[in-house]
Amino acid sequence: MTEEKPQETWRKRGSAPERIDHYQPKERRGLTVVITGHGKGKTTSAMGMVLRACGHGMKVCIIQFMKGDLYSGEWDGLKMLDCGLEHYATGKGFCGLQGNPYSKNEHRANAQDALDLAREKMASGRFDLLVLDELNNALKLRLVDLEQVLELVKGKPSLLHLVLTGRDAHPEVIELADTVSEVREIKHAYRKNIEPQPGIDY
Amino acid sequence: MTEEKPQETWRKRGSAPERIDHYQPKERRGLTVVITGHGKGKTTSAMGMVLRACGHGMKVCIIQFMKGDLYSGEWDGLKMLDCGLEHYATGKGFCGLQGNPYSKNEHRANAQDALDLAREKMASGRFDLLVLDELNNALKLRLVDLEQVLELVKGKPSLLHLVLTGRDAHPEVIELADTVSEVREIKHAYRKNIEPQPGIDY
Repeated sequence: MTEEKPQETWRKRGSAPERIDHYQPKERRGLTVVITGHGKGKTTSAMGMVLRACGHGMKVCIIQFMKGDLYSGEWDGLKMLDCGLEHYATGKGFCGLQGNPYSKNEHRANAQDALDLAREKMASGRFDLLVLDELNNALKLRLVDLEQVLELVKGKPSLLHLVLTGRDAHPEVIELADTVSEVREIKHAYRKNIEPQPGIDY
Repeated sequence: MTEEKPQETWRKRGSAPERIDHYQPKERRGLTVVITGHGKGKTTSAMGMVLRACGHGMKVCIIQFMKGDLYSGEWDGLKMLDCGLEHYATGKGFCGLQGNPYSKNEHRANAQDALDLAREKMASGRFDLLVLDELNNALKLRLVDLEQVLELVKGKPSLLHLVLTGRDAHPEVIELADTVSEVREIKHAYRKNIEPQPGIDY
């Protein structure tokens, strides 16, 4: 690799724009964002928002529900983001999935602990972005209750961004959110019997 | 913030899993992934894959088509990823969008330069993941041609992961891909006249 930065290389060679604009909203608002659906790209999308927020110098906390027993590359990627980020992979895997050794009661106790952690982090006022990864899924599986999630979302400080991911988001959660995307599966490599690949799938 | 790492805090307090598994596929495969649709979370999702790949120690190159004239937080987020990543924001904004000062010919020349750059990076053999952000969009707007994109995808080295984002992905590109997600808009904050917010929208 050359010493020259990629963007400098591009500016020399290419037809780069003459100026770069910096947008600033007149009013700052903390958004509730829900990323749901059965396709690839929900947690992935949340991680992209984390990268973006860190770039803006914002303080980020990520609490992963259900995930914590299987390594994923973002765990080390997040460590590279030198911005006071806090990341908790709290879970014990996908409840009810074949091979998972924990009982439903253990999964629920675990998710309730994680929800307490989420409440604490939200109340601390130290964060600009709080990601609750797979919370939709934890709700669907009754590891947390609808009332608990609604209370959490309704209690969000007005400037905090709250991102909830996981399939099968509850309609009442969607109702409260500002931005909701459904990631649909058009195709997935695993249907061609291609195993999960590092960097893409985990 | 305490000196203790978040994950250690969690293990002390919570019902953390007894062990963490590390999955390894028997066969490594480079995937072609397309993230399309009109909802929020396409570029964002690509950035999440970048974070994940960096965590695995993979080499990443990101070429953004059309984007380059408007600052986005991920530009600085990517700089924090100390993994030899190359990022080129090549574009001159959204062709045809009100207020954009460049002609269609200028946008096309610009996108053709970026496509040359993509071909070079692909041929270099130095990368594990190549992200071509908004290429679907550039194709839809005829800044690049279908034949050019198909040739690029078909020429992908077998171990390279190639991620293409942008709305309105071409059916023939989808046909060639391994994993395709369509991000549908269920709701978007801008429909409530909430301006784009840093960390979430840019």
